[in-house]
Amino acid sequence: MRGFEQAEFEDRTSRAQDLMQEHGLDALLLTTEPDVRYFSGFLTRFWESPTRPWFLVVPATGKPVAVIPSIGAALMAQTWIEDIRTWTAPDLADDGVSLLAETLRELVPDDGLIGCPDGHETHLRMPLAGFGRLKSEIDRRRITGDLGILRDLRMVKSQAEIKKIETACRIAGEAFERVPEIAAAGVPLDQVFRRFQMLCLDQGADWVPYLAGAADQGGYGDVISPATQQPLKPGDVLMLDTGLVWDGYFCDFDRNWSVGPASPAVRAAHHALIDATEAAFEQARPGATASDLYHAMNSVLSRGGGGTEAGRLGHGLGMSLTEWPSLIPTDHTVLKPGMVLTLEPGIEVGSKILVHEENVLITEGAPRFLSPKAGREIPEL
Amino acid sequence: MRGFEQAEFEDRTSRAQDLMQEHGLDALLLTTEPDVRYFSGFLTRFWESPTRPWFLVVPATGKPVAVIPSIGAALMAQTWIEDIRTWTAPDLADDGVSLLAETLRELVPDDGLIGCPDGHETHLRMPLAGFGRLKSEIDRRRITGDLGILRDLRMVKSQAEIKKIETACRIAGEAFERVPEIAAAGVPLDQVFRRFQMLCLDQGADWVPYLAGAADQGGYGDVISPATQQPLKPGDVLMLDTGLVWDGYFCDFDRNWSVGPASPAVRAAHHALIDATEAAFEQARPGATASDLYHAMNSVLSRGGGGTEAGRLGHGLGMSLTEWPSLIPTDHTVLKPGMVLTLEPGIEVGSKILVHEENVLITEGAPRFLSPKAGREIPEL
Repeated sequence: MRGFEQAEFEDRTSRAQDLMQEHGLDALLLTTEPDVRYFSGFLTRFWESPTRPWFLVVPATGKPVAVIPSIGAALMAQTWIEDIRTWTAPDLADDGVSLLAETLRELVPDDGLIGCPDGHETHLRMPLAGFGRLKSEIDRRRITGDLGILRDLRMVKSQAEIKKIETACRIAGEAFERVPEIAAAGVPLDQVFRRFQMLCLDQGADWVPYLAGAADQGGYGDVISPATQQPLKPGDVLMLDTGLVWDGYFCDFDRNWSVGPASPAVRAAHHALIDATEAAFEQARPGATASDLYHAMNSVLSRGGGGTEAGRLGHGLGMSLTEWPSLIPTDHTVLKPGMVLTLEPGIEVGSKILVHEENVLITEGAPRFLSPKAGREIPEL
Repeated sequence: MRGFEQAEFEDRTSRAQDLMQEHGLDALLLTTEPDVRYFSGFLTRFWESPTRPWFLVVPATGKPVAVIPSIGAALMAQTWIEDIRTWTAPDLADDGVSLLAETLRELVPDDGLIGCPDGHETHLRMPLAGFGRLKSEIDRRRITGDLGILRDLRMVKSQAEIKKIETACRIAGEAFERVPEIAAAGVPLDQVFRRFQMLCLDQGADWVPYLAGAADQGGYGDVISPATQQPLKPGDVLMLDTGLVWDGYFCDFDRNWSVGPASPAVRAAHHALIDATEAAFEQARPGATASDLYHAMNSVLSRGGGGTEAGRLGHGLGMSLTEWPSLIPTDHTVLKPGMVLTLEPGIEVGSKILVHEENVLITEGAPRFLSPKAGREIPEL
C-alpha cells in the first residue's frame, strides 16, 4: 500500500507532542523534506529545487500547520493537514518569513519555546538571513534546538514504514540479481551505472536518488567517486551501492562482483566482510548499542587487512539514505525494535578497499535481514 | 569533455576574490553541494547522505581549502584543490567544527569578515548548533552574508558549463522524442514515470534527480505531485518535466501530449503557452530584466485563461535544478550573456492547468534555445 493511514500521522504527532511536553517545548519548527513529510505525508520530488522554503509547525496540541509556497497547496491539501497557509513564492522581499512568524505568534504562547532540529545530521533549510529575521519577529518567543525529538521519533520505524523499506530492498535485490545482464569485461563503468539504474526502475523503483560504486584491480580506491568511462577488465572488483526509493523510503546496500576469477586476497576479503556482517547481525538485538555492532564488525575486520576511511561501519536508514545512529565506537544509542540499520563493513586489500553492506531490522528477538543476504563467496561476472 | 580545465577553477576563484575584496570579505565559507563543487570540481552523489558536513573556504588569495570528512579525501585529491584537511566523520562530539575554526583562524585576519551565503535560495548545510559553536571559536572574526557573490558568479555560465547544460538538454530532448514508445491510453502514470526515467538514462543521462508530471482530463491539477497508478485515458493531457543531469549540470524543461485528439480548449492553451514562450524569447537579450520576460509571457497568458499558482514563469538553472534569477515582476536582475534560463509559462484551462517549459541561453545578440523547441500544436499520443 502506498501512503499511510491517517492513524500513522496522528500517532507520530501525539508522540512528538508528548516529548515536547516532557522537554518543555511549545512547538516544533521543521524545514527539511523528511521532517516535513514525517508529520504530513507531503511527498514530492520538488524539494530538488532549492528556491523555496517550506515550513511545518507542530503545535503543543492539535494537527501540524503547514506554511508553504502556493505551488504546493494542491498537494498538501491531499494530506491529513487541514491548516495550510500559503504565500506566492519566490517573494524576494519576504519569502514566507512574516507568514511563519505570524503563525508562530498565534500557535505559541508569548514566552514559549520553539524547537528546531539543530544537532548532528540536521540542517536548517531556509536562508540564514530569513531565520535571523524570523527570530526578531516572534517577540519574546525563542527558537532553540529540538532536543533530539525528531531523531528519537524517526529512528524507530512503524510496521508500515518497515514494509516500504522492505519493498525498496526487494526491488534493489532483484536489480542486483540482474547485474550479469549489464556488466562484463569490456563494458565501461559509466554504462554499468546507467544500466543498473534502469534495472532498478524496471524492477519497480520510483526513483534512484543514490548510486555509488567503483571498479578496479583487486578492489577499489574509494566508494563515493562518480563512474569513469574505464571498461571493466578481468581482475576488477566491481561494487554497486544503491539507495533507491519506493514510496518515499530508501534501501541502502551494495554488492561486489569479481570480473573473472577473484584472487585469493579478494576472496578472503569478501569472506571477512560477510563474517563481519554476521558478527554484527548476531549482536543486533534490543539492548545492544550501536557501538556494540561496530566492535563486533571491527574485531573481525582487524584480523584481516584493517578498516577504511569511511568513518563508520553502518548507520540508520529510512526516509533519508542515512539516518541516526552511526555504528562507531562513540555512539551508544541503545537498539530498539523497529530500528532499521545498515551493516557496512569495509576492509583494506593491499592499497585498495572492499566494502559490503546489508540492511537489517531490529525486532523483539533475533534481527531480520531486509536485504537479500549476500553469499560468502564473491560472485564472478 | 567531462570535468573542467584547471583554468576554469582558477578563473572562478579569482573572480570570487575580486568580489570579496570589493565587498570587504576576507574569506568565503561554503557548505552546500553546488557551492563547494563550483570552486573545487568535487562531484559525487554522496551528498544524498545528510550525515556529514563538508566545508570549502575561499581565502582572499590562493587556492580554496577543503575541510572535509576523510571518506572524501581520495576524491577531493583528484581535483585541483591541494590543501585538504580531513576529520573522521561522523564525530558526535566535534563534527569538523574545531578543524574548520582552526582553518579560519589561520586563513582570516584577527578581525576579518567571513562571507557565508545567507540570502534568497541559499541554506547552511551544517547543524545550527555546530554553526553557533563555530562562531564562538573564531575569536574576533565574524561570519556575515556573502553579499550575493555566489549568486552573481554562478548566474553567468562559462562556455564549458553551457556545453554541459546543452548536453543535458539534448539527452532530455531525445528521451521526450521517445515518449510515444512508453505512453499510451491504458498505461498507468507511475509506469510512464519509471519508463521515462529509463529513457533518459538510455539516452545518456548520468542520473535523473528530478521528474515531475501529471495527467488528467483536459489538463492537470498541479505539477509537483508524485505519479498516481491511474492509467492514461483518451482526453488526458500528459505532462513530463525532467531535470536530468550530465556531468553535474541540469536541464529543466517539459513536454505536453494529448492522449487521443485534444479538445479545442487544450489546443488553444498550448498555442498560448508556445506564444508566451516566443514572446519572452524575443525579449531575452542583454539589458532586458527577468521581470521583462515575466511581463512578456504574462501579457500573452492573460489573454488566455490567466496564470497558475506556480509563483513564477521561469528561472535560472545550471548546477542546481533551479537557480537565480526568478521570472517574476519584482526581480529586476539584468540579463547578461552566459545566463541560462527556463521560460516556463503556465495557463488555466477551466479548473485545470497546462505548463510549458524551455531552456534558453542569453548571448551577446539573439538568445538560443538549448532545449529542442516544441511545436505550437500539442502532439497526440
